[in-house]
Amino acid sequence: MWHLYQFPLCPFSRKVQLALGEKKIGYELVTLYPWDADERFRQLNPAGRVPVLHDPDRRVTLMDSMAICEFLEETVDDRPLILGSARARAEVRRLVALFDESFYQDITAPLLYEKMRKRLVLRQSPDSRVLTAARRLLHEHLDYIDWLIDNRRWVAGSQLSLADFAAAAQLSVVDYLGDMDWTGHESAHGWYRVMKSRPSFAPLLRQKMDGLPPPRSYADVNA
Amino acid sequence: MWHLYQFPLCPFSRKVQLALGEKKIGYELVTLYPWDADERFRQLNPAGRVPVLHDPDRRVTLMDSMAICEFLEETVDDRPLILGSARARAEVRRLVALFDESFYQDITAPLLYEKMRKRLVLRQSPDSRVLTAARRLLHEHLDYIDWLIDNRRWVAGSQLSLADFAAAAQLSVVDYLGDMDWTGHESAHGWYRVMKSRPSFAPLLRQKMDGLPPPRSYADVNA
Repeated sequence: MWHLYQFPLCPFSRKVQLALGEKKIGYELVTLYPWDADERFRQLNPAGRVPVLHDPDRRVTLMDSMAICEFLEETVDDRPLILGSARARAEVRRLVALFDESFYQDITAPLLYEKMRKRLVLRQSPDSRVLTAARRLLHEHLDYIDWLIDNRRWVAGSQLSLADFAAAAQLSVVDYLGDMDWTGHESAHGWYRVMKSRPSFAPLLRQKMDGLPPPRSYADVNA
Repeated sequence: MWHLYQFPLCPFSRKVQLALGEKKIGYELVTLYPWDADERFRQLNPAGRVPVLHDPDRRVTLMDSMAICEFLEETVDDRPLILGSARARAEVRRLVALFDESFYQDITAPLLYEKMRKRLVLRQSPDSRVLTAARRLLHEHLDYIDWLIDNRRWVAGSQLSLADFAAAAQLSVVDYLGDMDWTGHESAHGWYRVMKSRPSFAPLLRQKMDGLPPPRSYADVNA
């Protein structure tokens, strides 16, 4: 049985959970907060980061969310998520990297620091200038998702792919933190409602962080 | 003919150049500094980042260095670089991500900012505290490379892989900037000398950044 080391608001662990759900692979969650990563965990992952997908019986340890997704892609036939021609697959991977790196650095990482880490660990108030900058950049990224969805059926092309799940994973964290603003982004909003309704998304909508409740609309698939 | 948009000290473009060289794929370099990325380039890559691998004749545009490497892996049979079983391939990808993300964030990115960007663009002196912190972290990463090379033939296992080139690409930038210190890292040093002697490495040793000359030892494959 796979054990997925993660914490509820880690967008990369969310992407892996969505891929596991789509591929109908069973797993157990092991919660590990980055500020509690101890020496034993560093033995598992020298980078000291989640997600780590670990099977103690088969002694398989996988880390780095993209390496995990590529492994699942290569070993499980059900529901391919990096699919099509080599060019189409390159487009999926480009967009996964765009959400994992640019979106994360611009928006998810500063919001997690200001609203999760400062509240739960540092006992400080968020810096409103950082929140304002992240919210402004959120609109730029949502503009780009609008453009993609206006020109394609799904984020990376005509088929549902890992790019949709990478994007939805980041957005779900922003939504949990109460910072989602869909004003002027009808296309992105419609696409996200579809993503949120998928059975693979249901576990994410149930997971809560202690001391940091989500807004009521978070788990509402029609919101 | 492929056009590779890059600048001489971009470690991700260096990784792609090494993969192109190993696979014996011809390409032309197009130099583009991040601080000169204009609107036309943003049409090519909305993320505004190099490397971009572009074939104007076939109208193929690939971006994100790992998506480029996966594309080359899927389309060119010569010299596989992500190889072996699914587990072995996951190990290659884990280590590529470790060097592209952790090593880059800890060492290459701060050194590039302090010694390249401040000198060439901002006309400021480097912050010695940042340099000291990066050099300290360099030893931690070199310890890990020592451990890998002491336990395996190559960085990711028994075969030369993209993980070796991802690591060597980052180290080559540190070396160019004059910050390499091999003291106490015989294993990593021996491995790097072997990497530096490969024909695919030669173009990197010739590329210079205007206004920022490398130390003499940089291009010496015995140093």
